[in-house]
Amino acid sequence: MPETTSIIPVILSGGSGTRLWPMSTPETPKQLLALTADETMLQLTAQRASGDHFAPPIVVANQRHAEEIEAQLKAVGTPAQALILEPVARNTAPAIALAALAAGGGDAALLIMPSDHVITDTDAFHAAIHAARPMVDQGWLVTFGIDPHAPETGYGWIHVGEAVAPRVHKVARFVEKPPRDRAEAMLAAGDHVWNGGIFLFRADAFLGALAVHAPEVLHAAQQAMLKARHEGARVHPDPQAFAASPSDSIDYAVMEKAPRVAVVPVSMGWSDLGSWDALHELSACDGSGNVCKGDVVAIETENCLVQADGVRIALVGVTDLIVVANGKDVLILPRGRSQEVKKLIEAMK
Amino acid sequence: MPETTSIIPVILSGGSGTRLWPMSTPETPKQLLALTADETMLQLTAQRASGDHFAPPIVVANQRHAEEIEAQLKAVGTPAQALILEPVARNTAPAIALAALAAGGGDAALLIMPSDHVITDTDAFHAAIHAARPMVDQGWLVTFGIDPHAPETGYGWIHVGEAVAPRVHKVARFVEKPPRDRAEAMLAAGDHVWNGGIFLFRADAFLGALAVHAPEVLHAAQQAMLKARHEGARVHPDPQAFAASPSDSIDYAVMEKAPRVAVVPVSMGWSDLGSWDALHELSACDGSGNVCKGDVVAIETENCLVQADGVRIALVGVTDLIVVANGKDVLILPRGRSQEVKKLIEAMK
Repeated sequence: MPETTSIIPVILSGGSGTRLWPMSTPETPKQLLALTADETMLQLTAQRASGDHFAPPIVVANQRHAEEIEAQLKAVGTPAQALILEPVARNTAPAIALAALAAGGGDAALLIMPSDHVITDTDAFHAAIHAARPMVDQGWLVTFGIDPHAPETGYGWIHVGEAVAPRVHKVARFVEKPPRDRAEAMLAAGDHVWNGGIFLFRADAFLGALAVHAPEVLHAAQQAMLKARHEGARVHPDPQAFAASPSDSIDYAVMEKAPRVAVVPVSMGWSDLGSWDALHELSACDGSGNVCKGDVVAIETENCLVQADGVRIALVGVTDLIVVANGKDVLILPRGRSQEVKKLIEAMK
Repeated sequence: MPETTSIIPVILSGGSGTRLWPMSTPETPKQLLALTADETMLQLTAQRASGDHFAPPIVVANQRHAEEIEAQLKAVGTPAQALILEPVARNTAPAIALAALAAGGGDAALLIMPSDHVITDTDAFHAAIHAARPMVDQGWLVTFGIDPHAPETGYGWIHVGEAVAPRVHKVARFVEKPPRDRAEAMLAAGDHVWNGGIFLFRADAFLGALAVHAPEVLHAAQQAMLKARHEGARVHPDPQAFAASPSDSIDYAVMEKAPRVAVVPVSMGWSDLGSWDALHELSACDGSGNVCKGDVVAIETENCLVQADGVRIALVGVTDLIVVANGKDVLILPRGRSQEVKKLIEAMK
């Protein structure tokens, strides 16, 4: 990447998802766990956007995770230039506004990345960033469109429009989480991609778009940062000012409304790791189709995902099962039904 | 039961089985666990032979369980008259010899009971004891033959011979654990019963039979008791003397050899609870065929046995599964395969 100015990675660590319960909990959300490698999802995200062409990251996170995030980033040599600790969660548009302001609000390019996604082909990711950069420098808001391989109803989709530069296309339309038949039609048509929630734009371009399309978000973020408390790299936005912001996603607040929005389709081994099934699919299996982690004894067991943390799991003669246990909870469900963790969490409330 | 002298229950608590792993372990064997009721198997065994016609029990146990056994028996109001703490395990013949000597070796009737069996119909059990008593008083060694309902290859069987008193038959022959076809033939013939390991005989009759058929066992037990250390109700047989005993079952050492051996067939809801499947069969199921104990959340789950101790188990969409977890271990296997716990224990060694 021959760009003269470094890209500032902005890592969004706001997720408190429970889709990988019992491993992911509000105390230890998915991004802080090592699920696909020895590194945590956060560490992998930071490493993916480090090196010559990247500045140290800005991280936006829940204040309860401050110490853990600092320790994890330090451990892989990618300390944050700013760790913005949200006093309350207000979705992605306000979070990114804080980061854009912390970056100075000028023409620096910001690479917005969720902290808990898998990207196995970093080269493809970097090439897509490289392709996007000229339009970004001209003030376009760029999203990366994930090459779809299934009629997913859990993602937003993007209708890819005309090319405006090599590999860069205008967004014809954003499509909210579609019904199944619509998803199948989009997959078959071949001109739609998944909205992966990864963006590249200049700070000023984003803040300018906010000023037009979501002025209340911008105002709240500005006030929160004006009155912010600084503590080393930690930034504590003013709680009252930030809490006044509407809770909006970047898609809804800006991307779906701004005029110069582009998409770079890319195939880079992306996954949002939204379920235990997704982890099983991503992981290298043993000869019996099992993915075992921790203290696991499996006899005549096939095509299972077994994760043991703090306990030993012993299985005989089971097939196509997902088993995840820590010292407090044991989750058991068949492969293909891991989205139903939600039902359990509801039932346990 | 109109007998003039009380029967002395002899409870054998030597089992250290691991068939109900991970709940049963050498530290907390099956008899010390509450599996079928609020009471433990030991407590249920003691209660089953308490009341007007029974003296306080003599218990033979591993010395590591002394305090737990005392506490459990005290809690249900059936303290032992003697708690004989074996310094080493030497199978049932030497254990019963210790108890017979502790009982004074006279004409007192001893009711030998494993401490970890289920008997749901206590009235039937008492009636069988009552039927056996006249022959016992005449010096016969009586075993109770369990009415068989399956071609079990894991039990010894007894060929029921001619009647010698109402309900009491000579033992035609003991059959060691048979192959499947033999078991099926015995079940079909209708003249065989299972050897449940429950016996009734006079102490002197048993010791006399030992003197003839297993004199080394008798000698070792006598020496061990002569040099025993007494501590309240606790009896510590001399370790060196007891260790010198051959390790023999009562069946092999005495019952298969003595001349006056009888069997009282009885149907009393007996089970040796030899597997998690056996427990599932014995237990009352909910409307979905599940037997759940502890902190269990089950959604769309059918015909499962789920036992949670110290952890929470959450299931969605599973069927015919046995799941047993404590704070250290999680066991998962399909119903019908719980005998294979053995394989796991071997694999974990």
